[in-house]
Amino acid sequence: MNALYAELTQRLADLTALEEVVGILSWDQEIVMPSGAAESRGRQLSTVQVIAHERLTHPRLAELLNALRDDPTLDATQVANVREAQRDVDKATRVPAHLVRAQAETAVRGHEIWVAARKNKHFAAFAPVLNELVEIAKARAAAIAPDKPAYDVLLDDYEPGMTMARLDPVFDRLKEVLLPLIARIRAATDVPDMTWLTQHVPADTQRQVGENIVRSMGYDFTCGRLDTSVHPFCGGAGPTDVRITTRYAENAFLGSLTGMIHETGHALYEQGRDVALADQPVSRARSMGIHESQSLLWEKQVGHGAAFWQAQYPKLQSAYGFLKDKPLDAFLRGVNDVNAQNLIRVSADELTYPLHVILRYELERDLFSGRLNVEDLPAAWNAKMQGYLGITPPDDAVGVLQDVHWSGGAFGYFPCYTLGALYAAQFYQAALAQHPDIPEKLAAGEVEPLLGWLRAHVHRVGSRLTTDALVTAATGRLLDPEAFLSYATAKFTRLYGL
Amino acid sequence: MNALYAELTQRLADLTALEEVVGILSWDQEIVMPSGAAESRGRQLSTVQVIAHERLTHPRLAELLNALRDDPTLDATQVANVREAQRDVDKATRVPAHLVRAQAETAVRGHEIWVAARKNKHFAAFAPVLNELVEIAKARAAAIAPDKPAYDVLLDDYEPGMTMARLDPVFDRLKEVLLPLIARIRAATDVPDMTWLTQHVPADTQRQVGENIVRSMGYDFTCGRLDTSVHPFCGGAGPTDVRITTRYAENAFLGSLTGMIHETGHALYEQGRDVALADQPVSRARSMGIHESQSLLWEKQVGHGAAFWQAQYPKLQSAYGFLKDKPLDAFLRGVNDVNAQNLIRVSADELTYPLHVILRYELERDLFSGRLNVEDLPAAWNAKMQGYLGITPPDDAVGVLQDVHWSGGAFGYFPCYTLGALYAAQFYQAALAQHPDIPEKLAAGEVEPLLGWLRAHVHRVGSRLTTDALVTAATGRLLDPEAFLSYATAKFTRLYGL
Repeated sequence: MNALYAELTQRLADLTALEEVVGILSWDQEIVMPSGAAESRGRQLSTVQVIAHERLTHPRLAELLNALRDDPTLDATQVANVREAQRDVDKATRVPAHLVRAQAETAVRGHEIWVAARKNKHFAAFAPVLNELVEIAKARAAAIAPDKPAYDVLLDDYEPGMTMARLDPVFDRLKEVLLPLIARIRAATDVPDMTWLTQHVPADTQRQVGENIVRSMGYDFTCGRLDTSVHPFCGGAGPTDVRITTRYAENAFLGSLTGMIHETGHALYEQGRDVALADQPVSRARSMGIHESQSLLWEKQVGHGAAFWQAQYPKLQSAYGFLKDKPLDAFLRGVNDVNAQNLIRVSADELTYPLHVILRYELERDLFSGRLNVEDLPAAWNAKMQGYLGITPPDDAVGVLQDVHWSGGAFGYFPCYTLGALYAAQFYQAALAQHPDIPEKLAAGEVEPLLGWLRAHVHRVGSRLTTDALVTAATGRLLDPEAFLSYATAKFTRLYGL
Repeated sequence: MNALYAELTQRLADLTALEEVVGILSWDQEIVMPSGAAESRGRQLSTVQVIAHERLTHPRLAELLNALRDDPTLDATQVANVREAQRDVDKATRVPAHLVRAQAETAVRGHEIWVAARKNKHFAAFAPVLNELVEIAKARAAAIAPDKPAYDVLLDDYEPGMTMARLDPVFDRLKEVLLPLIARIRAATDVPDMTWLTQHVPADTQRQVGENIVRSMGYDFTCGRLDTSVHPFCGGAGPTDVRITTRYAENAFLGSLTGMIHETGHALYEQGRDVALADQPVSRARSMGIHESQSLLWEKQVGHGAAFWQAQYPKLQSAYGFLKDKPLDAFLRGVNDVNAQNLIRVSADELTYPLHVILRYELERDLFSGRLNVEDLPAAWNAKMQGYLGITPPDDAVGVLQDVHWSGGAFGYFPCYTLGALYAAQFYQAALAQHPDIPEKLAAGEVEPLLGWLRAHVHRVGSRLTTDALVTAATGRLLDPEAFLSYATAKFTRLYGL
């Protein structure tokens, strides 16, 4: 084996191990850490992160990557591994230390100020630190790629290769189809009984039912665990230690269940990574958009669909007495209820969710191009909410202050949610074309051949291919909103009898 | 502040953070990690440990310590901090890398072979790897201090400053008093009913009662947590994150309870460390012997005594129906039962435990001086068991193969258990002399002033003083077995009506 490449993989394996350590420390902090340990945990995390940064910016690593960049003896996987490592090194070396520090410190302060501002429904208190975070993000973008628009550089952090030039037409097309569809649904007079959705179900019953469903989706409990947390997440340390969490609202059983299915989608991606290359960047999940495609494919295409519930609904009915006489169709209508009056992104339905995202994308884009100032955000937010959904937030807490992202300086993340929905629809369509028996198998409680298709075309591919190459190899075309739009139009037209 | 000293503390803080990270990874591995993650956890741990070793042996750290060694501007705490750091650096730099590797690899192999050998009751299968481990330990000792007897260097790993020259007369004195005392007990005809000790108590009831007692001892749950594990331990990451575990045998409630009290003694020591210096070596627990003194003081002097149970026994009686009519005296007689027929160290009582330790100490000492060969260990073990306790193990599994220590090359650890018992008796005697109301307060359910005395004289002292200085400052004299011997003689003479 190429000696330089062997040395490179050793250095990258150490970096992966440090990332995994951060994963365990973070999981521990959320789930089991005693409250008194918050300060010492902060020191432990920053020590490990500083060491990882030192290693990522070590001159020898840059030297190895330089020497290997055009090495003709490397195979395709090795070439991809070098490319992914180079990407990490570039970002780490180009951003000067003072900006990294400023970002970290301002994010901590920003979060505190945001919590208070949201509580007081008072955007003006948050505006100054948000301004600082925007300026830092601009400086960071300029350091990474001075020749590119700042917001494109930020998008690239979460979705490598994504740009405004590509997103604008995609999002415009979504609006073109979704806005009239939502208007037709809003006009629908069919208002079925939904009170069963708020029936009381003890947390422990929810946990048992949920665990059973998670297991039947192919989640491997020998390489993972399920815990309870305020904010559900999928974390852990590499493909053999993938930990998911959920919360159990005793008067909203459906939310915890679809939340578990969503996190299981993320977890199946992580558990499906190439274990033989688990310590190398090339095995990592491709991007946040592709990650979200896996959670949404299982939550929406599968977990909001009739086939899946043919097998799983009887489990619910036998555990939750009030569902015994509820037909599957009525249950599915409840699962897929569209509520265009909802102000909050995280509780939005499948149809309105993209509009919540597009709103945020457009504001971020205009903020970074200079067309919009921070102080004008609330007015711009409310105008867009009125334009897209016909509602205006009564205050900023349920408007411009509702999301945590900006308080930590995470600009450019929101589009990934909707990219995920679009990729999910493309993947599911492609899998169905290749395996028309997927619905029939799901209806029999079997996740194969769907899971096998995802393993082969997404999970095991990892970062071997770029996002575009992966999506093209899997679906025959680049990012394309039509799969989602035809799926959504057909489904909701049918459900609402439009 | 001295700039060099400030630089030193920064480097030491990083090392402490890495040690704490290892603490969390290890706790996670024992308590919550999915089984499939064993291999990746091994990589994470070794990555962090290699980084810690690189930092401990970094030339700049040695330079700083050199420059600060005789710096007259340092105060006593700073001088002690330099001394403790120097000790760590010396051990890390003097042992060559090939020995560290050989030790680690042979320990893994040794453990595997020992598990099989114990299962097959076949010492001969374990002898070759044990021989290797002894030779590696000798080489390691020679690398650290070539002018000292090897076994003294090994003792110093766990109990800094301890030597065979000091241990021999102490242990001889213990034998002189304990052997005839045990003989008198063995001859006692008083055999009370002990069947209540094996009454069934559900694990959850044991947990509730135990948690209550642990809390009443002053254990701070905001800086710790209590979990279940096969081998109980006290772990975590620094004084604000001290985690204890226990196991619940449903037909031996007393074992889990005294086990919890024991681990709480360790935990109180860790939680009582100087938080302001938590990231520096000077705040660390003084030694394994002093650590064991804290667990044993709470388990034995306090937790096997009448005063403590006057407050706590009613809790047991109300939770465990079968104790309702059992008088406190009969309960205490059961708690303190001496079983000289017991072959196993970990389940030995307070009186015979030191003999199990002395036996191991004498064998280790003779092994390292060359007076005893590995292959002769079983015969030597059995002869000593016969000489001290009048019993001979029926096989090696319950004889020479019973302990895990040697399988990992941990030679010189055993004496700490009995040093702990001796220090515990000295500390308790000194605390009583200063606060004669300790029993009265314990009987009222109050751990003050005992805990306050331990905080001031042991916990907060950390490693500011050497063991000898700490013990002298706290008790007015050096290590001295008489406190333990008079306590034990008085207690067991009374309990057994001798």
